[in-house]
Amino acid sequence: MPTHDTNAAGKSQDLPGHHVHFGREAPLRLDCGVDLVDFTVAYQTYGTLNADKSNAIVVCHALTSDQFVAEPHPLTSKPGWWRLMVGPGLPIDTDRYFVICSNILGGCIGTTGPQDVNPVTGKPWGLDFPVITIADMVRAQAMLVDHLGIDKLFAVIGGSMGGMQVLEWAALFPERMCAALPIATAPRHSAQNIAFHEVGRQAIMADPDWHGGDYQSHDARPYRGLAVARMAAHITYLSEQALTRKFGRELQDRDEVSWGFDADFQVESYLRHQGITFVDRFDANSYLYITRAMDYFDLSKRYGGVLANAFKGTSVRFCVVSFSSDWLYPTRESRAIVHALNAAGANVSFVEISSDKGHDAFMLDEPDFHRVVAGFLRGCAEYHGLNRNLGNGA
Amino acid sequence: MPTHDTNAAGKSQDLPGHHVHFGREAPLRLDCGVDLVDFTVAYQTYGTLNADKSNAIVVCHALTSDQFVAEPHPLTSKPGWWRLMVGPGLPIDTDRYFVICSNILGGCIGTTGPQDVNPVTGKPWGLDFPVITIADMVRAQAMLVDHLGIDKLFAVIGGSMGGMQVLEWAALFPERMCAALPIATAPRHSAQNIAFHEVGRQAIMADPDWHGGDYQSHDARPYRGLAVARMAAHITYLSEQALTRKFGRELQDRDEVSWGFDADFQVESYLRHQGITFVDRFDANSYLYITRAMDYFDLSKRYGGVLANAFKGTSVRFCVVSFSSDWLYPTRESRAIVHALNAAGANVSFVEISSDKGHDAFMLDEPDFHRVVAGFLRGCAEYHGLNRNLGNGA
Repeated sequence: MPTHDTNAAGKSQDLPGHHVHFGREAPLRLDCGVDLVDFTVAYQTYGTLNADKSNAIVVCHALTSDQFVAEPHPLTSKPGWWRLMVGPGLPIDTDRYFVICSNILGGCIGTTGPQDVNPVTGKPWGLDFPVITIADMVRAQAMLVDHLGIDKLFAVIGGSMGGMQVLEWAALFPERMCAALPIATAPRHSAQNIAFHEVGRQAIMADPDWHGGDYQSHDARPYRGLAVARMAAHITYLSEQALTRKFGRELQDRDEVSWGFDADFQVESYLRHQGITFVDRFDANSYLYITRAMDYFDLSKRYGGVLANAFKGTSVRFCVVSFSSDWLYPTRESRAIVHALNAAGANVSFVEISSDKGHDAFMLDEPDFHRVVAGFLRGCAEYHGLNRNLGNGA
Repeated sequence: MPTHDTNAAGKSQDLPGHHVHFGREAPLRLDCGVDLVDFTVAYQTYGTLNADKSNAIVVCHALTSDQFVAEPHPLTSKPGWWRLMVGPGLPIDTDRYFVICSNILGGCIGTTGPQDVNPVTGKPWGLDFPVITIADMVRAQAMLVDHLGIDKLFAVIGGSMGGMQVLEWAALFPERMCAALPIATAPRHSAQNIAFHEVGRQAIMADPDWHGGDYQSHDARPYRGLAVARMAAHITYLSEQALTRKFGRELQDRDEVSWGFDADFQVESYLRHQGITFVDRFDANSYLYITRAMDYFDLSKRYGGVLANAFKGTSVRFCVVSFSSDWLYPTRESRAIVHALNAAGANVSFVEISSDKGHDAFMLDEPDFHRVVAGFLRGCAEYHGLNRNLGNGA
């Protein structure tokens, strides 16, 4: 495993992009009961806000992605994670819409999280950071939207954990949005989802360099545990078919097996690479907090166990999308969302995209999916007269 | 995590049961090219061998099970792993059949593996132990069968990795067996299978207590890494439905979440328990070697890439069984075996058992499965006139 800059932790607020500070005057009351004061939200925007501020779209990112949606990542130099979706002429067309994406609360790419300094103690939060929820993430995003002077969003869009945020947006702030696109997501985390996350957390916490969460004080980082966590999670992001198609049993740079424990197979080499590169851009405690937020997510719980009650009387237009080979958030989870929306009398479209790419399909080249998003947004724009305001009618 | 007896490693040959030594006169040539001399095979038997030695069944165990098929485990005191299948009046009826099960080569429950002493150096083998294959395991079993004076087995039966051994038995020694029951298995390890194993291996090798495989010399054992490996693997043994049915989102001994990283959910507590208890009975290097043997398994490779060639002209009668919710070795893998057997003109029955219990179903209470095994064996016994020899005609 390569060496790493152990000073990387704690420097996330030095990353380029927009930062806004909240909480000094009005703290954010978290679901766990803690008041969060003096926290930062880091965000990026794409496109231009129109005069009546009616063309804003909030993009909600997934577990390990961030606000660098459609531009090279400042840490890895890799292209933005949704570059196929967000940009001029793309489905989320930045010639028409003003796109906002903020790093989630608890994250490690500029928004306050466990690696940042606790203003009370002057030391990194570590495990003293309060446990956050998907709803807390969304409340912080709403503060950002307030800060930008936007009353009502045109749409909120996200896949995976981003989709959970979309559902929370629609539940908490239905009057502040026209459209919601929860993609490849679920209304609550299943036992299997929790199990995979727990494996990742145990891998991190088993690493002696984790130091009970206080690794920054020890000038260490639990790289090995975090890499194993990433490897385990990464398998769940791909379908069995995709792994077979991409790698099968092909060997890596050799004609015969090594009769040992090198990365003989390409799939091993690929997984190791996923683990090793991940630790350079992600904080281990953040990984614990964000997976915990996902595990705690069970939208119906606040609504007497009836998911439909989360959306009662909503005027938000929904487009729910799943992918046929996604076994992490399979289509039946999206159907549960759709059934609840139907029961709530909501306006809802549902599409299952046929794909063999698994969960990660939502970030990959899936033309049918892209057409669905583009078409749905265009329809909503017409319904809300947005095209007239943009001066470039459909 | 509890403390463990670090002396447990290396004591496997002190376990109760039968042990036989091989290789001093005729070494075992392994697939990797190494000659294995002076090795031990530990085994258990159940029932009585009949006069003409025609009623012997070899049971092949899976990755983490062992020769204690139908009796309490000497290390854990837990009941035998196939107690529902093997015993008087059970499908593999020990009133009729003589059942043999040996710990696999590379294992850690009495048969020689990496934790044992290398006779050349006088030190534990560790990573100097040669990499073994499923075929090597089967060749060692055949030596045991020779030792017991049995020319022809009535049947060879096993699930999961045990099923791979069954397929190797049928490929290597078709004239030495009447029937083969490969259960919940595959003719080769898929990219996803390899990926999950690689995560487990990386978890072990990331544990500083692994010491490059030389932990015995350091009076240490990589318990934490091995526990994480077990947790990740254990998820794959259960179906999503089984996890939901058994645990759902139920909390463990509490009414509210802890807002922290305790095992809030029952599924977390269950997984942690699986990890912690596993390390008391299993050797980490053995886990590396056995998973590697499974990853290397690709039966058709020796036969020009045509699986049917492995079974050409066979007179073995096959019963292939899969379970509908097994996503580790899904039904399509069993179908591939069946298609090859059909192409080879073999006598083959195939049953997919409807079950929501996932891969582990083959060890659980599945009455339909048990009826299939009992019925198939009874039919083979009639075909081979075994019932007359047993004096208890069907």
